[in-house]
Amino acid sequence: MAETFDAVDIICTKRDGHELSDPQIDWVVDAYTRGAVADEQMAALAMAILLNGMDRREVSRWTRAMIASGERMDFSGLSRPTSDKHSTGGVGDKITLPLAPLVASCGVAVPQLSGRGLGHTGGTLDKLESIPGWSCDLSYDEMMAQLESVGAVICAAGSMLAPADKKLYALRDVTGTVEAIPLIASSIMSKKIAEGTGALVLDVKVGSGAFMKDLDSAQELARTMVDLGTDAGVTTVALLTDMGTPLGLTAGNAIEVQESLDVLAGGGPADVVELTLALAGEMLAAAGRADVDPADKLADGSAMDVWRAMISAQGGDVGAALPVAKESQAFAAPTSGVLTRLDALAVGVAAWRLGAGRARKEDPVQAGAGVVLHAKPGVEVTAGQPLMTLLTDEPERFARAEDSLLGAYDVEPGSRAAGHADERPVIVLDKVT
Amino acid sequence: MAETFDAVDIICTKRDGHELSDPQIDWVVDAYTRGAVADEQMAALAMAILLNGMDRREVSRWTRAMIASGERMDFSGLSRPTSDKHSTGGVGDKITLPLAPLVASCGVAVPQLSGRGLGHTGGTLDKLESIPGWSCDLSYDEMMAQLESVGAVICAAGSMLAPADKKLYALRDVTGTVEAIPLIASSIMSKKIAEGTGALVLDVKVGSGAFMKDLDSAQELARTMVDLGTDAGVTTVALLTDMGTPLGLTAGNAIEVQESLDVLAGGGPADVVELTLALAGEMLAAAGRADVDPADKLADGSAMDVWRAMISAQGGDVGAALPVAKESQAFAAPTSGVLTRLDALAVGVAAWRLGAGRARKEDPVQAGAGVVLHAKPGVEVTAGQPLMTLLTDEPERFARAEDSLLGAYDVEPGSRAAGHADERPVIVLDKVT
Repeated sequence: MAETFDAVDIICTKRDGHELSDPQIDWVVDAYTRGAVADEQMAALAMAILLNGMDRREVSRWTRAMIASGERMDFSGLSRPTSDKHSTGGVGDKITLPLAPLVASCGVAVPQLSGRGLGHTGGTLDKLESIPGWSCDLSYDEMMAQLESVGAVICAAGSMLAPADKKLYALRDVTGTVEAIPLIASSIMSKKIAEGTGALVLDVKVGSGAFMKDLDSAQELARTMVDLGTDAGVTTVALLTDMGTPLGLTAGNAIEVQESLDVLAGGGPADVVELTLALAGEMLAAAGRADVDPADKLADGSAMDVWRAMISAQGGDVGAALPVAKESQAFAAPTSGVLTRLDALAVGVAAWRLGAGRARKEDPVQAGAGVVLHAKPGVEVTAGQPLMTLLTDEPERFARAEDSLLGAYDVEPGSRAAGHADERPVIVLDKVT
Repeated sequence: MAETFDAVDIICTKRDGHELSDPQIDWVVDAYTRGAVADEQMAALAMAILLNGMDRREVSRWTRAMIASGERMDFSGLSRPTSDKHSTGGVGDKITLPLAPLVASCGVAVPQLSGRGLGHTGGTLDKLESIPGWSCDLSYDEMMAQLESVGAVICAAGSMLAPADKKLYALRDVTGTVEAIPLIASSIMSKKIAEGTGALVLDVKVGSGAFMKDLDSAQELARTMVDLGTDAGVTTVALLTDMGTPLGLTAGNAIEVQESLDVLAGGGPADVVELTLALAGEMLAAAGRADVDPADKLADGSAMDVWRAMISAQGGDVGAALPVAKESQAFAAPTSGVLTRLDALAVGVAAWRLGAGRARKEDPVQAGAGVVLHAKPGVEVTAGQPLMTLLTDEPERFARAEDSLLGAYDVEPGSRAAGHADERPVIVLDKVT
């Protein structure tokens, strides 16, 4: 890079509400990755970006600079098109598990580089690691070979992808600058674009259990990310989906794998099936295979076949029993009536406190821990009937998990109105293309 | 301190436009000084403060917390009242030199803890160090003894005063967060209040050569600082003074000492005399001695007597010749007419590049370097006549100094209108009490 800049000049440019130039963005992202721009300088710049924003050109360039900080994968040598999915994270969001094999069973390869959970949202790798023998660590060659032979792979993202993002994310986490839409969008999209997929479907969660609490901010994030994908030549679509209440009937690790198996077997909770099919449809359409109906592949067992091949290829024992928590405790409905609200964040925090999640990235998680729901909003409950079951290996965790559930649900007197007997929750709220 | 806080919570509070509580401010300033809050966290907070502001209570508390980080001096044992002056820094601003002995000669003690120059504004200690033998390093006892015997002392501020400010200032300097009025005001006032003066007069410079380029921002800074002084029980007044053109006819070190001696001898440039007397009057009034006319003390030599005693007490040889630069070069007027503008910043940068100032705080300065002005705005000049003389020990510095003077002045055709023959520049623009 021929030109050099002064970090303070760049900070002041954004601080004073002006646009950063392409060379300024290229320089500051590269210099930060190399350590030539200090953490305190990037922290000040991140706060200025959070408060003064970046326009589409700036966010696109910032994303491109983060991609350029590392390697970029290339799936163009595969015999089939690729399509990838990214969720912004929710409670009970196990969709990747049935979705990847389902889409692969429709003829589109799914390279799903995933992460671990932190805080109240679970991580896909943590969930799959509850399967005995399964490993997320694949070499590049192993991943490519599995994509070609099985069509789907879920593994850990390598550290060679967008290292600038890794460093910047750790900094934002301790400096109150996580909640900047340009930085959230470029963080997600730099990794996804570096992963080299041909098409990308974003699942932007909205509600108490999600990072975006309201539809407006979720739409802004979705719009920013779709634009970034489009600017980088990746066909990108976003669905905005409800995360006010947990997805499905489980929040944990092994219990979410079991629920995913139920879906692959043609059953499973309606909301999980709905969202899996909606995302599969978008992934197929984005990859030019709108002609295939993924519902057929769930019904005829093709998706389950790919699941078994995918898990086996990564060392997982598809015949082994899943781990079960040592202790369980029922959480009962205090009164009779209709359950009208069950808060996603509270359930996520309960599962986390039971041991399903971690507070620091080096902490272990319990495979069997979590929360099983016995009722979802809209259902009639009777006083004393279990609303949910709490699961953990360490019974001393029950009390704090129960604390998080105080005020997390409403049971209203009366019975479900007849006219609403077939009411299904609306999961997909909006679509951004 | 019993209560502890989370740095990220505090950053987010200010980021989201809310007020910081007193305990939050006390904790974050103390924790930063101790190293428990990281530089990158304070940088993000400083940027949030710069962009979202702090109200009077917050700035007062922030200042109090910075004072509490170190020691506080106490002059209440002296036999006379004390009055202190602080200038926000300008080009050719040697006012402290004649002012301190002048006020002392009127019966009010002046404890003037000063700093060195950085960038285009000179430092009082750098100027005085051009006097052979003079030392700025006094112990607390030496300073108190000199204040009692001579009535005036100009020395280096000890590192025990407001160490939080020292650390924060260094951070702000590299993170684009210098220009935050609450942080500028609390930085200045924490040191001044910790110095323990009974009364304080602020000289807030306005114009190209000053930190504050326009009257509005200078008024806001002055108002904030006067409020901080008042809240801390220190009688505080601010004068807003012009820094669009250099003060006096010299910008450098030894040449500014010489100009100060001219003022103490009853002569000197009109603007320097005007400002010295205006500030002296405010310092005396603030200390309850409005009955004394400082002009008399310049005229009768009393102020010069205190100067000699003050310099001698700190080892300075008042009989020695001041250093002279090895090389000089005239800078000529290109056309004839009236000099209508001479930019303070450009002259300050020229003096800096000639060696009178430093770029990094560990750099040395040249005692003899600087710029001598031969004309000030409003004066008629003739083509080829020297507008100024550039002085340095290193002739290779002339070219870059001349570069900084390009476009720094206007000479307009015609002669000075007769009606303006006695026009004097207005130095004091406003007063904030």
